[in-house]
Amino acid sequence: MPTGSSPAPVVVTGGAGAIGSALVAALLARGHEVRVIDNLSSGRREHLPSVPRVVFLEANLLEPGQYAEQFRGATSVWHLAANPDIRLGTTEPRVDLENGTLATFNVLETARRHDVRSVVYSSSSVVYGQAKVFPTPEEYGPLLPESMYAAGKLAAEGLVSGYAHSYGFRTHIYRFANIIGPAMTHGILPDFFAKLRQDPTRLQVLGDGNQAKSYLRTEDCIEGMLTGFDRAHEAVNLFNLGAADRISVRTIAEKVVAAHGSKAHIEYTGGSRGWVGDVPQQLLSIERIGRLGWKPRLDSAGAIDKTIAEMKAGR
Amino acid sequence: MPTGSSPAPVVVTGGAGAIGSALVAALLARGHEVRVIDNLSSGRREHLPSVPRVVFLEANLLEPGQYAEQFRGATSVWHLAANPDIRLGTTEPRVDLENGTLATFNVLETARRHDVRSVVYSSSSVVYGQAKVFPTPEEYGPLLPESMYAAGKLAAEGLVSGYAHSYGFRTHIYRFANIIGPAMTHGILPDFFAKLRQDPTRLQVLGDGNQAKSYLRTEDCIEGMLTGFDRAHEAVNLFNLGAADRISVRTIAEKVVAAHGSKAHIEYTGGSRGWVGDVPQQLLSIERIGRLGWKPRLDSAGAIDKTIAEMKAGR
Repeated sequence: MPTGSSPAPVVVTGGAGAIGSALVAALLARGHEVRVIDNLSSGRREHLPSVPRVVFLEANLLEPGQYAEQFRGATSVWHLAANPDIRLGTTEPRVDLENGTLATFNVLETARRHDVRSVVYSSSSVVYGQAKVFPTPEEYGPLLPESMYAAGKLAAEGLVSGYAHSYGFRTHIYRFANIIGPAMTHGILPDFFAKLRQDPTRLQVLGDGNQAKSYLRTEDCIEGMLTGFDRAHEAVNLFNLGAADRISVRTIAEKVVAAHGSKAHIEYTGGSRGWVGDVPQQLLSIERIGRLGWKPRLDSAGAIDKTIAEMKAGR
Repeated sequence: MPTGSSPAPVVVTGGAGAIGSALVAALLARGHEVRVIDNLSSGRREHLPSVPRVVFLEANLLEPGQYAEQFRGATSVWHLAANPDIRLGTTEPRVDLENGTLATFNVLETARRHDVRSVVYSSSSVVYGQAKVFPTPEEYGPLLPESMYAAGKLAAEGLVSGYAHSYGFRTHIYRFANIIGPAMTHGILPDFFAKLRQDPTRLQVLGDGNQAKSYLRTEDCIEGMLTGFDRAHEAVNLFNLGAADRISVRTIAEKVVAAHGSKAHIEYTGGSRGWVGDVPQQLLSIERIGRLGWKPRLDSAGAIDKTIAEMKAGR
């Protein structure tokens, strides 16, 4: 970082999480002071580098008084905090209302009060519900969420867009495919590895194994976010971020079993969906972000292979 | 109503409002007991007929304890309550969060707890933001709201869809064009009449007068809602409701001045939008609901003319 031209501080919510901490590292590499706000419900403080330019605050986004000071003098807020457990909403509808919609409102409102007019939001492909067009472009509609998690993401997108137009924010909304990489606590790979640890002779797979989705590595995801942030300057800049291809749950299960070295029998519970609210088919168009010069380094299989190798190595 | 086959009770939130009270009358005519919940912020009790089959409760949707009992034994909830003042969100972002998103969550959650699995929701064309396709179909995207009011509508749509899929609700979502008719407290006609009462010599019009939108009469709107409710049976049934044409603000201003009988000078404040968050061009595709047999009796000009005549007559 050149002396005397220190980039301004930025705020990252959920910055101790798997994606958040990778983003923190990238923003740090750009010379920013990074102020992390995380409630440590699934994030971990040890994911963050211990350097003076990373400031950590454990706080609840539903209590702006706990963290509003962190917004003072910041130039952008990267709002990644969310409930990572999509299935929880099938029994607890309030979880995503609070951790999705209300947390986002509080982040936006705190940004407004402190005159931080740039907000980046990590949305999800789940806002498309059961899309009928693949790859699904950003223009796809109607957006009919099939889970409370997805409803929270859609609500948050609307709030971000509303603040952009009502209060002069510049905003970036990224609809993530399945993001995989180090330090993940939720998702198909942690699930499969946990099951095999419990019983190495069998791997139970929810659904018929034909669900197929695109998987993007964390580092590709971060590069995509930074590309959009640097190069798109509308009030609302909306981008899908995913791999250009998809991979089936069956293939992933076979890869995990092979890597595990066990002779585990793969059992399918049946049905086209993994669970209520699951979106079994997902493939995003990445043309729009592609026009800005970004493409993923790894395809879905490459991302899965790399992550399996890391998990096997205990990382 | 045939003896012994009394249709089950239904709940209408916002039932004392201009659209709500017309819906109450229509549901009453179908033989239902109608339980109205309204905070009377803009609705009025005198809009409701004084008959035993209409039960009125003044309550705040943010306090489910005040009204949950009304849901007991009901077969459907028609959730029309909302903040009617779109412009308020430009200075008070919390109004639409509370009266839009949170009120809708509470209504859905109360319905779930009382096993009322049919919810009808009055959304709005504003969820389309500045659409680039006219007439705008339900499949249009992306949905990027330009006001906090619109963000609240989009969030509520997401919640309704989430409950449909997570908790087995059957839901109907209607995206309204501008609905006009008796008893309206907000909108272009009450605004223009109020201005002329204050100063009969001039009518100030926000924007350049070229904003053009479709206007639907309340009674056509109610018929559209009932048509969709009777004939569409998916988990989420989403329909635009509007007139097949649009009319400019300039034309409406001229009609109001002519009806007023004054020689009021029409002044335009300029700019393509009426206000921050205004969606200056709006025309909805009504093909989808048209396939179920509904079409509006009046076009936009007819709806405006009829409503002007009623307002002039003091109704």
